[in-house]
Amino acid sequence: MDQRVVTLDNMNPHVIKMEYAVRGPLVIRATQLEKELQAGAQKPFSVVTKANIGDAHAMGQKPITFIRQVVSICLTPTLLDDPSFPDDAKQRAREVMAGCKGSSLGSYSDSAGIESIRRHVASYIQARDGHPSSWENIILCSGASEGIRGIMKLMVRHDNGNKPGVMIPIPQYPLYSASIAEFDLHQIGYYLDESTNWGLDLSEMERAYEEAKAVCTPKALVVINPGNPTGNVLSRENIEAVIKFAHERNLFLFADEVYQDNVYADGCKFHSFKKVTSEMGAPYNQMELASFMSCSKGYMGECGLRGGYAEVTNMDPEVKTMYLKSISAKLCPTTLGQAVMACVVNPPREGEPSYEQFLTEKKGVLSSLAQRAKMVVEAFNSVPGMSCNIVQGAMYAFPQIMLPEKAIAAARKAGQEPDVFYAFQLLENTGICIVPGSGFGQRPGTYHFRTTILPQPEMLKTMLEKFREFHTKFVEQYQ
Amino acid sequence: MDQRVVTLDNMNPHVIKMEYAVRGPLVIRATQLEKELQAGAQKPFSVVTKANIGDAHAMGQKPITFIRQVVSICLTPTLLDDPSFPDDAKQRAREVMAGCKGSSLGSYSDSAGIESIRRHVASYIQARDGHPSSWENIILCSGASEGIRGIMKLMVRHDNGNKPGVMIPIPQYPLYSASIAEFDLHQIGYYLDESTNWGLDLSEMERAYEEAKAVCTPKALVVINPGNPTGNVLSRENIEAVIKFAHERNLFLFADEVYQDNVYADGCKFHSFKKVTSEMGAPYNQMELASFMSCSKGYMGECGLRGGYAEVTNMDPEVKTMYLKSISAKLCPTTLGQAVMACVVNPPREGEPSYEQFLTEKKGVLSSLAQRAKMVVEAFNSVPGMSCNIVQGAMYAFPQIMLPEKAIAAARKAGQEPDVFYAFQLLENTGICIVPGSGFGQRPGTYHFRTTILPQPEMLKTMLEKFREFHTKFVEQYQ
Repeated sequence: MDQRVVTLDNMNPHVIKMEYAVRGPLVIRATQLEKELQAGAQKPFSVVTKANIGDAHAMGQKPITFIRQVVSICLTPTLLDDPSFPDDAKQRAREVMAGCKGSSLGSYSDSAGIESIRRHVASYIQARDGHPSSWENIILCSGASEGIRGIMKLMVRHDNGNKPGVMIPIPQYPLYSASIAEFDLHQIGYYLDESTNWGLDLSEMERAYEEAKAVCTPKALVVINPGNPTGNVLSRENIEAVIKFAHERNLFLFADEVYQDNVYADGCKFHSFKKVTSEMGAPYNQMELASFMSCSKGYMGECGLRGGYAEVTNMDPEVKTMYLKSISAKLCPTTLGQAVMACVVNPPREGEPSYEQFLTEKKGVLSSLAQRAKMVVEAFNSVPGMSCNIVQGAMYAFPQIMLPEKAIAAARKAGQEPDVFYAFQLLENTGICIVPGSGFGQRPGTYHFRTTILPQPEMLKTMLEKFREFHTKFVEQYQ
Repeated sequence: MDQRVVTLDNMNPHVIKMEYAVRGPLVIRATQLEKELQAGAQKPFSVVTKANIGDAHAMGQKPITFIRQVVSICLTPTLLDDPSFPDDAKQRAREVMAGCKGSSLGSYSDSAGIESIRRHVASYIQARDGHPSSWENIILCSGASEGIRGIMKLMVRHDNGNKPGVMIPIPQYPLYSASIAEFDLHQIGYYLDESTNWGLDLSEMERAYEEAKAVCTPKALVVINPGNPTGNVLSRENIEAVIKFAHERNLFLFADEVYQDNVYADGCKFHSFKKVTSEMGAPYNQMELASFMSCSKGYMGECGLRGGYAEVTNMDPEVKTMYLKSISAKLCPTTLGQAVMACVVNPPREGEPSYEQFLTEKKGVLSSLAQRAKMVVEAFNSVPGMSCNIVQGAMYAFPQIMLPEKAIAAARKAGQEPDVFYAFQLLENTGICIVPGSGFGQRPGTYHFRTTILPQPEMLKTMLEKFREFHTKFVEQYQ
């Protein structure tokens, strides 16, 4: 056998460095276990519960009928003549098709998306915030991740010795750490405050910024609201403080707002960064801000269809030209994902034939999620040695676990982080797949895990019972 | 106004450097002209003809019914009960859904795609080539571009002074030059031989390689077959010679084979690199090879739906692990694009209800394209001062144009490349949008343009007449 051309020794070191825990070794093992079960293997469990990823449909959530109808008509326009498809779905589909070259979703759209859909997104934002939004600032993308990476990429450069730095919350969603590693940017982690329900702590942000300044050039600040993996929903005060912080330090703001529909806790409300900067007036309404939305989350849960958008405010026009050029080499985001976004930002209105069903389905999903958010928190807080903040929003809980010294020692001996060790034990014993806190970041010496709240209520109940049983046994074993 | 955070002066210089001519300034102007016409402006033409991009549906090609039916059913499973949808489409949709978590295409698939579809791709390749293909080597992606960029990215590194080099044909498809610029790799251009219908010339490849060795570390060789923008189809001999060339120099092979269904000329046949390396035996069947396919081209033309695959052969297993990890941060390719690919590799078979219609539609598209390929070549060769090689395959012609000295001088005065100047004049006078040869690369002192052969026959005829008229006037003007 010849020497290979591309090997671990000579390949891109940044790809080697990047980690993406949500799909890491635990998930690979979980998939293996599923296959083993299918093949008839005997395990201490009969089903693998994938609570590792915010994948609602995989956990039994049903699609929103209206969205699926519109996209189906776009694909098969003869359904326009099918009386079982409602008129408003037909009207939306007609409008999407009219925005496509040759009236076919099989043609490439502009790289920034179909103009009529971009206009609907801008109207949606304007209605949500009560402040103007320009369709030319809307960039449709195949899921929010693509949008985030595309804009972060603009900041990459390695020629001045000092890497550009990106401030991200810890714990964070690993898309950020993975992209920062891949792009060879400098990661500036600021800890969220577990004692205030994972709130933003300005003095901690200040500490992180000051320490990083010595080794990098801070350029951007990422805020995830509602929080992933923390489930925190930022107060308006908190958001204003962050905006001032970013302005004083001349940072480009990334507002990851993909969970904007997922707010459950009493007294919590979603405030977009765009709205708050707008209302704070100059100079804050002049700041560079990119906000991201997705059809994968909310009540839609259409992860596989890959739809999303970025709203890019106050970007330098020359930089924006370069940004648009850079996405043109990827041709266009999936037109079907764009059609999904068209439904999300322009759903059935009162008086339209699909309105009642749409509202029932949407409310059904969101109220069930709210109920499950409570269930999860109560369950974990009732387990000795676990503590879990309120899940105010998003789709996750991030409980802390107290691990016995002996378990920590056993983990070290096995060459694993203690929370990874714990998660593997959980998986092998119960079939429950969660993501260890180290995949998101946590204060040294503390251990957490992220679980989604997505298993359907009955399944979630069983999962939580099995979890409690496992944890009790685990602690006993290593006490 | 504050100083912006991200400016042209401090942004990613590689994004500034990259160019993507297929969607460049000419196309932006063409879109502007369309809007002006819609707004009632008077122009020397009433319609803009976008012959700049291989976008079949935009030019009036109809979708393949079977593909659209399968994907519609996947979205709206109640269509399984609709008697107007054929059984084979239902069976394919059922199989795709069965491969999705929660039976919904709204769930994330594995990052490499839905296993059952990856298996069908492998069977398709095996049947096409007569040699084994492993489903674990198949990576589904949102269009071939994503696959190409994902694998090229593995080779990036900047720490040893010498950049990795990638050999690409000149003229080339600008995805390659754009990605090489963005990734800060070294572009090694080897000229195709216009005098042998854009054939590969080993001595020219040797020259390019030897010259580049001094300034970079050549790592990969890209071949586009059938050729874009050249329309050339490689002979088996030619392919064998290239494989030997790459093997001797230890290069990773990229076989861009997205036009494998688009072969028109008598005596021409598509040979996949995988088949040829397999049949050449050791050591050639041990070479690292990535081959790419797409649903955007062929007879499907489903550009907007974003489906494609890479077959990755003999990649170092550790590198492959890193590759799979790197794509996991993008979560998954669109499941609907994957469903399209499922149809492409597993179309209706003889005896199935959709077989006749599918075959009629497929043959209809391909025979019309073959006819248009001839039309275009004949038309351009009948214009004095133009010469055009046979379009053996793909969707493009790349004619050479002789520009008068005065036109070249006028272009220089306007600060444009002469072929860009020509293309802008063509656009402003006729509404025809083509891409200047400089966007693909050409031998210095020669001028070309790329046009698609995609406008429907009547439209194409009109376009060619207008083109001839323009060219004659242009030459007269600058003679």
